[in-house]
Amino acid sequence: MNQHTVKAYGDELNQLTAEVVRMGGLAEAQVADAIESVARRDVALAKAVIERDSRLDALHRDIEKKSIRLIALRQPVASDLRRTLGAMKLASDLERTGDLAKNIAKRALILAEGEPMQVLTRSIERMGRLVSTRLRDVLDAYTASEVERAQSVWSTDDEVDEHYNALFRELLTYMMGDPRTITACTHLLFMAKNLERIGDHATNIAETVYYEITGEDLLGERPKAVPGPGEEATPTPHLSPTDSAAD
Amino acid sequence: MNQHTVKAYGDELNQLTAEVVRMGGLAEAQVADAIESVARRDVALAKAVIERDSRLDALHRDIEKKSIRLIALRQPVASDLRRTLGAMKLASDLERTGDLAKNIAKRALILAEGEPMQVLTRSIERMGRLVSTRLRDVLDAYTASEVERAQSVWSTDDEVDEHYNALFRELLTYMMGDPRTITACTHLLFMAKNLERIGDHATNIAETVYYEITGEDLLGERPKAVPGPGEEATPTPHLSPTDSAAD
Repeated sequence: MNQHTVKAYGDELNQLTAEVVRMGGLAEAQVADAIESVARRDVALAKAVIERDSRLDALHRDIEKKSIRLIALRQPVASDLRRTLGAMKLASDLERTGDLAKNIAKRALILAEGEPMQVLTRSIERMGRLVSTRLRDVLDAYTASEVERAQSVWSTDDEVDEHYNALFRELLTYMMGDPRTITACTHLLFMAKNLERIGDHATNIAETVYYEITGEDLLGERPKAVPGPGEEATPTPHLSPTDSAAD
Repeated sequence: MNQHTVKAYGDELNQLTAEVVRMGGLAEAQVADAIESVARRDVALAKAVIERDSRLDALHRDIEKKSIRLIALRQPVASDLRRTLGAMKLASDLERTGDLAKNIAKRALILAEGEPMQVLTRSIERMGRLVSTRLRDVLDAYTASEVERAQSVWSTDDEVDEHYNALFRELLTYMMGDPRTITACTHLLFMAKNLERIGDHATNIAETVYYEITGEDLLGERPKAVPGPGEEATPTPHLSPTDSAAD
């Protein structure tokens, strides 16, 4: 390596951010493809998603290493430090997002072997599109340092919960009506849960972006759609599985 | 504040580590109590777990703030830097562990309103005890800087998967045999999934402890019990929901 080539500190930080942006694009594509593979019963696409996940893992490890190196060697402070720590956090959320997309694809493979269940997979598709949009919006916010867009994603967290709760009820009804569908419906249930958690990661990313830009935490509780039994003033005596917060 | 009281850098780092240890103890207790509340249908205990979760959130935020301050002001390198970043990572895994325990407790409240299902809750209890033990072991490894113990927790990750897979099959069989149990069994399913994920966090902590002590990553794939359809050489034409990796 040319000893006279000294990488400017600013370049190193920009390169780190750029790698996170790239990782974000890959994670977005994985989520979109995974949902597509469910909707179209597309086995080849599902397998491609499963295979590509290792690239996200590699990017995560690389971003972590670079961040630690940067902190150790450059000793950043203030907003540069926040950017570096933010890169590590985002890489972590994106790696988990990729894992969840891979798991949706694995279940898509299984479902493709059984009878089509178009009404239900269409609901998954709709929820998937909402979650994909939130992920895309928050990554746009990161790329362009747009604090309002990050705030907007953060404060509409409950939209995803509403989809999840409705899907959950739909699946339970289906299962109770026809026990032969229980196994397949369980897969769809976990797909819905995975999508909800991808939505959570998008919200995490929104918080990280906000903190990175402003140096402050987004205050308050995340918006949640349905209060769970532990949060209701008078617990209702019914079996409601819709409280899924933090699952 | 007394200007002449200057906190030694080493003290600051030790204090950070001590706070993580304390958070670990609280997370352990939450997991154990949540499982107990399921096994004994103990409504008061479940409510206590739900309420105490905010303490874990507060500790997480505090550890993060202190870590960032420490990095900014003391500019640690080498093993001190790894310790500081390790504290942040552990606090993150422990906060998620607490959320999962809270969610188990919320579902315990719901189940306590219905008919007892002792065979199934006993299975949950057994899986819970295994997961609790792994969490305790890995936190002991952190407290005492024992690299071999961390490695041991990491390499026995598949034990948890085996419990999960068996529980999953048990629950599906139950649901298919009696559709009136579907809602309750779905709660138990998510409890099992939460326990599996707590197990994952214990494994994450093992990796962090290993890296913190040695400066190296634990190599290789985490041990997984049952290969999923995406990993089998010849996909078997059956609906198997047991592949739960990364859910």
